[in-house]
Amino acid sequence: MTNLYDVAYDMEKAIRNSDEFKNLKSAYEAVMNDAASKQMFENFRDTQLELQEKQMAGQEITEEEVQKATQVVELVQQHETISKLMEEEQRLNMMIGDISRIITKPLEELYSAE
Amino acid sequence: MTNLYDVAYDMEKAIRNSDEFKNLKSAYEAVMNDAASKQMFENFRDTQLELQEKQMAGQEITEEEVQKATQVVELVQQHETISKLMEEEQRLNMMIGDISRIITKPLEELYSAE
Repeated sequence: MTNLYDVAYDMEKAIRNSDEFKNLKSAYEAVMNDAASKQMFENFRDTQLELQEKQMAGQEITEEEVQKATQVVELVQQHETISKLMEEEQRLNMMIGDISRIITKPLEELYSAE
Repeated sequence: MTNLYDVAYDMEKAIRNSDEFKNLKSAYEAVMNDAASKQMFENFRDTQLELQEKQMAGQEITEEEVQKATQVVELVQQHETISKLMEEEQRLNMMIGDISRIITKPLEELYSAE
């Protein structure tokens, strides 16, 4: 066993100290500290989750549901603090994606060798 | 920006040098270097993927398909080099799961704070 878990804890610390994480944290707190924004964000998240679950269960999504979801997205995009949060989420996700591509490279190489 | 990408490359190296990865690599090569094992393993993987795709598309899985999949799994479990490979895959997945839980802890904490 190498120092794999040590490296994992280094990575945790590096993520926690990254600008991406700090900015996400501020953006999240800005939304959560305002009751109206919090409600709107949670409503948005619930709608997304609901549709995702239906999709994964192979259930039909009605015209009405699509319209409702589109409305919620539009509302959220116009909301300054929430759209800021979504932007920061996207940035952090890109960072996590980059990290993930780097650390899974050994596996990808192995399974694409044949 | 901290040394996040440096840490990611350290992690890649640590995974590559881990016993878990080395054992998986040997087990994978043992299967791939034997034509009959390779064929059986690929057949197993194709069957799994096919069922997964159907499930995700919300399509019905027939009794016949369930039976075929069960047979393929039984065959593979009795095959020494393939079952060894599956065991090593599981070990590596557990390791990756541990790492993933460690490095996503800042995010988990943030989103469960409310």
